[in-house]
Amino acid sequence: MRYKMVIAYDGSSFQGFQKQKNARTVEQSITDSLSIIHKKPVKITASGRTDRGVHALYQVCHFDSDLSITPNGLKRAINARLPKDIRVLELHEVSDHFHARFSATKKTYKYVITTEYNLFERNKETYIHYPLDVGLMKEAINKFIGTHDFKGFSAYVKKKPTVREIYEAKLETKDHYIIITFTGNGFLQYMVRRMIGVLIEIGRGKEDISIIDTIFTEKDNNICGKTASPEGLYLQYVYYEGDL
Amino acid sequence: MRYKMVIAYDGSSFQGFQKQKNARTVEQSITDSLSIIHKKPVKITASGRTDRGVHALYQVCHFDSDLSITPNGLKRAINARLPKDIRVLELHEVSDHFHARFSATKKTYKYVITTEYNLFERNKETYIHYPLDVGLMKEAINKFIGTHDFKGFSAYVKKKPTVREIYEAKLETKDHYIIITFTGNGFLQYMVRRMIGVLIEIGRGKEDISIIDTIFTEKDNNICGKTASPEGLYLQYVYYEGDL
Repeated sequence: MRYKMVIAYDGSSFQGFQKQKNARTVEQSITDSLSIIHKKPVKITASGRTDRGVHALYQVCHFDSDLSITPNGLKRAINARLPKDIRVLELHEVSDHFHARFSATKKTYKYVITTEYNLFERNKETYIHYPLDVGLMKEAINKFIGTHDFKGFSAYVKKKPTVREIYEAKLETKDHYIIITFTGNGFLQYMVRRMIGVLIEIGRGKEDISIIDTIFTEKDNNICGKTASPEGLYLQYVYYEGDL
Repeated sequence: MRYKMVIAYDGSSFQGFQKQKNARTVEQSITDSLSIIHKKPVKITASGRTDRGVHALYQVCHFDSDLSITPNGLKRAINARLPKDIRVLELHEVSDHFHARFSATKKTYKYVITTEYNLFERNKETYIHYPLDVGLMKEAINKFIGTHDFKGFSAYVKKKPTVREIYEAKLETKDHYIIITFTGNGFLQYMVRRMIGVLIEIGRGKEDISIIDTIFTEKDNNICGKTASPEGLYLQYVYYEGDL
């Protein structure tokens, strides 16, 4: 039986999602829990990785299990063996054709900037102490919408395809918060944080809006090497066929 | 020159306030920062300790300094050398008679209970998964108001006086939160968490309201050995002569 598992995690104390030697990772914590329950190693496949310090409100994984147990019972068993900074939110039986990564149709990332430092929230929002021109940032963010080659907004030059489509890009303000969301069919590594990095440089007057076009045209990730810090970033939702 | 320093800290990553060997403590972090700035050891005196995992929204300390620097400049210098989970909120020049502990007239502690687990807030609120009778807890909390011998609500039997006066005890609900505040002329070690511990036992129907009177009468801290966990506890305010 294949399961679709929806999880949330606070990324502050993890060295990212993906398993690594001698590092506390989200994947390791989950496979540890599943392997204890199944009394054998169990692998999971996620919709994608998140980097060190990045959070997830709704990350999706799949795994296969031959246990005779209700999804709710299995969910409780997994949660009982997970550290407190990861929770399974939902667990559904799905068809064997379901694939957490390949079946995903869209993803939404959220980025939270605060202009007032709150020490209790320091790992969950990015504090920026210089003034930002929100109007300029709102104008700039529209340039990301549509189909573009995001190679210049990715950290590493890879041979993989680097064209992605952004369906929605929004910048909202509330009190001392600036909340940016991107919904797209896929995101390259560091792509969200690189886009936010450029938006922040524009907002503080260090770069002109036109830099976004230049990076798209030149496909050079050295033009604006700013990568926004991870603590404000959340994987907010992963969409599948049949979702709204 | 004596300074009154108001600080806030997230207690999650500290082994409490008070200096200890080989432990990360709030006091150590602050005296490290002050000692670097003064190029000699500087001691601080706080209004009182907080235990491991307990937070402060408004803790007060005093220290003496012979530096010729404005309070605002000194505040910035201290904050620049403090870890991100402690902030100096205010720094005031005060009379040499001011004493953070002995001049304090009242303190307010706040305790945050949630009945919905939020993994992002797990170190900042106490999650309780069983139903609580809030009406009973509201009735019970009034018993703490007034002057009582709180020996039975303290962790350790000491020779020190154990009579304290609670001026205000409040229990409020908001959404899935229960917020309890106590204002009093002083609190013994673990006293707030012991009072909350008893209130929770009453709220879940494990103890009768009358247990509070029994503990006051018997002065025995074994009658209800429940100590509420530290993550929901905040030192909210320390009052001095001249404050409202």
